[in-house]
Amino acid sequence: MLEYDGRDFAGWQVQPGGRTVQGTLEAALLRLTGQRARVVGAGRTDAGVHAEGQVASVCLATRFAAPALERALNAVLPEDVAARAVEEAPDGFDARREARAKLYRYGLWNGPSPSPLRRRESHWVPRPLDLPAMREAAGAFAGRHDFTSLKAAGSQVASNVRTLSSVDVLGSAGGEIRILVEGDGFLRHMVRNLVGTLLEVGAGRRAPDSIPALLAARDRARAGPTAPAGGLTLVRVHYQIRGPRLA
Amino acid sequence: MLEYDGRDFAGWQVQPGGRTVQGTLEAALLRLTGQRARVVGAGRTDAGVHAEGQVASVCLATRFAAPALERALNAVLPEDVAARAVEEAPDGFDARREARAKLYRYGLWNGPSPSPLRRRESHWVPRPLDLPAMREAAGAFAGRHDFTSLKAAGSQVASNVRTLSSVDVLGSAGGEIRILVEGDGFLRHMVRNLVGTLLEVGAGRRAPDSIPALLAARDRARAGPTAPAGGLTLVRVHYQIRGPRLA
Repeated sequence: MLEYDGRDFAGWQVQPGGRTVQGTLEAALLRLTGQRARVVGAGRTDAGVHAEGQVASVCLATRFAAPALERALNAVLPEDVAARAVEEAPDGFDARREARAKLYRYGLWNGPSPSPLRRRESHWVPRPLDLPAMREAAGAFAGRHDFTSLKAAGSQVASNVRTLSSVDVLGSAGGEIRILVEGDGFLRHMVRNLVGTLLEVGAGRRAPDSIPALLAARDRARAGPTAPAGGLTLVRVHYQIRGPRLA
Repeated sequence: MLEYDGRDFAGWQVQPGGRTVQGTLEAALLRLTGQRARVVGAGRTDAGVHAEGQVASVCLATRFAAPALERALNAVLPEDVAARAVEEAPDGFDARREARAKLYRYGLWNGPSPSPLRRRESHWVPRPLDLPAMREAAGAFAGRHDFTSLKAAGSQVASNVRTLSSVDVLGSAGGEIRILVEGDGFLRHMVRNLVGTLLEVGAGRRAPDSIPALLAARDRARAGPTAPAGGLTLVRVHYQIRGPRLA
């Protein structure tokens, strides 16, 4: 399990010229083991997105004791990414393919003046939000839907149908608000576009009962703007526990 | 009331060549009002120390509506400091002289691996801490004492006697721990030296019942090391409410 502060990363995925979490981990493993190995992350978080509980898998040619590898990784990783738990996985385990569900949290600071201590993990919304309206709209996102309306323009996948098991708006207007979104899979920018849409509902610019029609339209132009990356954190990834561990 | 992220400040107090909170506020006020005015802070926080509820006073020649001044300040201040509340004070009010009590919080992350998302406001302690022992020692710091043993070497004040109304250790070993210290006044580095001493107790390197003798010795060399600045936050400053506001 990995925790990182996404602020100074160009996202998870290796890309030319960008400082990425995947690239930083692969460089650390190369330094420790002498092996070039591909690290597979459960969620390919965007630039600026944080993680408390990202999960990644890697196949190394040599066997290492998990606690020793965890300590060694943390000794060489920069201060904005850490291995919070290292375990030996079953043969062929793939953190991305086998992920069953993910939980994301979006943080909002809803107050008239900005909050310097919350600015790195929360998006500032000065005007008081209508939380009951946001909760009504959030409930309409839960369930199995075609989420084309919340998908980043230009992103292509085989199917845009996903199931959100819960969308909860916690906190109170004029203070800290957290939006928790759990689902079996997420399209590109899906959580941030969902939050951007809820913020329009909270500001009174969009009706709380308009979500079913928004989803039915399958049109990105109908949803709200993409909320800033810095408010988003990948909290947990869930896996099905496999045979031997149940025995 | 001011909030700031102390990480990139050389502390509260104006000093040549350093980026300070006081200097940043005075520059913002000069820009907004055209007046050079001295801003007086309730607590002169050190380099790297944060504040959620610092209080500062300033005497301006022109009268401004408080809400308008608050908005204008936040429009020109950098993102690591904000005016969270601006009020008109009684004539001659001095935020430092009239402060009756201050509450500080020290954050610890007590886990085997580092926490990138907590690193800016918590000090990382990898080994499990003995919290009952720390609580016993903390209780012995509460009350009216000569705190010379916790005072930064070289710092000179008229009296080293202060009253701590409470010293509480909240949280649990192996997780987030917060040490709350409230008192009528603080010597230089007093909270960080108190925390450094409690950490020795928590690590089993100092007896929890040794605090009375430590205080009686009035010797800085007897206390623990100064805990890092980044874990410390000035949470609140308390004032006696004056006449007219009670009417």
